[in-house]
Amino acid sequence: MKQGILNTLGLAAIVMALSANTARAADPLPSWNDGAAKKSITDFVANVAKEGCPDFVPPAERIATFDNDGTLWAEQPIYFQFQFALDRVKALAPQHPEWKNKEPFNHLIAGDMKAFLAGGEKSVMAVMAASHTGITTDEFDKIVKDWLRTARHPKTGRRYTEMVYQPMLELLEYVRANGFKTFIVSGGGVEFMRAFAEQTYGIPPEQVVGSSGKLKFEMRDSKPVLVKLPEVQFVDDKDGKPIGIETFIGRRPIAAFGNSDGDQQMLEWTAAGSGARFALIVHHTDAKREWAYDRKSDVGKLDKAWDEAVAKGWTVVSMKDDWATIFPPTK
Amino acid sequence: MKQGILNTLGLAAIVMALSANTARAADPLPSWNDGAAKKSITDFVANVAKEGCPDFVPPAERIATFDNDGTLWAEQPIYFQFQFALDRVKALAPQHPEWKNKEPFNHLIAGDMKAFLAGGEKSVMAVMAASHTGITTDEFDKIVKDWLRTARHPKTGRRYTEMVYQPMLELLEYVRANGFKTFIVSGGGVEFMRAFAEQTYGIPPEQVVGSSGKLKFEMRDSKPVLVKLPEVQFVDDKDGKPIGIETFIGRRPIAAFGNSDGDQQMLEWTAAGSGARFALIVHHTDAKREWAYDRKSDVGKLDKAWDEAVAKGWTVVSMKDDWATIFPPTK
Repeated sequence: MKQGILNTLGLAAIVMALSANTARAADPLPSWNDGAAKKSITDFVANVAKEGCPDFVPPAERIATFDNDGTLWAEQPIYFQFQFALDRVKALAPQHPEWKNKEPFNHLIAGDMKAFLAGGEKSVMAVMAASHTGITTDEFDKIVKDWLRTARHPKTGRRYTEMVYQPMLELLEYVRANGFKTFIVSGGGVEFMRAFAEQTYGIPPEQVVGSSGKLKFEMRDSKPVLVKLPEVQFVDDKDGKPIGIETFIGRRPIAAFGNSDGDQQMLEWTAAGSGARFALIVHHTDAKREWAYDRKSDVGKLDKAWDEAVAKGWTVVSMKDDWATIFPPTK
Repeated sequence: MKQGILNTLGLAAIVMALSANTARAADPLPSWNDGAAKKSITDFVANVAKEGCPDFVPPAERIATFDNDGTLWAEQPIYFQFQFALDRVKALAPQHPEWKNKEPFNHLIAGDMKAFLAGGEKSVMAVMAASHTGITTDEFDKIVKDWLRTARHPKTGRRYTEMVYQPMLELLEYVRANGFKTFIVSGGGVEFMRAFAEQTYGIPPEQVVGSSGKLKFEMRDSKPVLVKLPEVQFVDDKDGKPIGIETFIGRRPIAAFGNSDGDQQMLEWTAAGSGARFALIVHHTDAKREWAYDRKSDVGKLDKAWDEAVAKGWTVVSMKDDWATIFPPTK
């Protein structure tokens, strides 16, 4: 009988453990700590996805847009695309002996970042042009993929595609499972992001909106190619984000996710539509596990958009408090 | 017994009739006459969609792009979007008394198309600007939808959205049923086409690539709006088509459909990819049921692309011979 009771208790414990496991497995956002931020997401998604609810939105209109730098992956100490550009210039230097005496390339070759940065935007644009143009779109795609396979982040030693936020990967998956179509809307170069967005985020190329340069169609050996020119076609940042959304997507999102003042207009445009709306800002508050920065930062400055988020009741996520995990396990 | 034989024969006739009906229902392209054009389509689709076949293409890469004017809907006697612009200028004329003495609007108000057309591209651009810009994107969408509901084609008396090609509607449905994602890639204005593409073709706004003007983000009564400016952002025609595909879609189509020299580069770009490829040109050969025009036409000129199609073995559809039906039944 005693044995029987023990067995019964033992069985009960196993059943309870199994239930707890099931509950954990059923949480679509396990890397999000319970709290107001997480609840605002799950409440919104449940309300728009449930037919018969007042906030129901037909699947075709469930458009969610995500900034990339600082929202889906890290952006410190410098934007990863700019790190790619610097690495590319160094790799190309042997083919350009003239760079040794040419600003701003001479500073990069000498490893003098201070002198390079003194050149300001002009130097940055020169490096972007040298690394991103004068080649075909197919060549560029291969160069970016090669870099992503081999380059490592200077602080963490991770691959850049491993510097993505685990809670945001879960969020992308979660909203898609609820009938959302997920888009990147980012100031980053559209072709740079497309080189990894599908594999890393499950976002196909046709759902990536970004900045772009002009292209030139030409025939090489009777085969058409598209050559990347050093002229800007479209800048998908600040005011450019709602414009990019209108031009590329043609439908106002019902949910938008950003982290900086560059996302403010996208969040405003999203929030101003009729029906249920959701706007979220990732606040970088975790100096230990990631970085802590906002109003005074050169990269990913969060100032006016933060004030507006507070005033309008948008969700502000504190990475330190709301995220149980920051980065996914390395492979 | 005689009666029994009659009954049996009667039953057999019914069974045969039912079978014929089933066979017809099973044909995904009933408005296409049997022949080389239809067979080239069904062979291609069967080969790329069947796992295990040498030509198999994963669903994510089954991108098909369609020109609009002259490929999905008619384009005679003038592009329908230009007819919209003319109608819009006439509707706006009472609010613009100054137009009575201002080129080229005075000619339109007087109904003198010959004098208007003498002004060439400059006159056309003036009418496009007056009808397409200075309003918000939301206002423009409503104006286009109102026009499409009420305007009638001068020759057929049909609504413009009823001037679409029934065989192409079937084709769109057929390739989507086989895992393709269908896009419009057209010289037409992207916002004009989005006003009807979803309802008419089953193509959502985010899969419409077209020409676009610049937009301006601004606040009106604390609400963000996007204002259409009279400056060109992107022209999605000729060389612009592969560029538009690369910028908006970011993936090379495996099948492309056009009807004029404006589609030539899109067809070249599509055909030049690796693996199975399909390029099709709709040739307007039916003066009785639609229009007959090609090398000498001002609208939808088909000359160089036709020669290339013949040289490279692309599918050329003769509307007269290959299409059993041109337009869908009116509602």
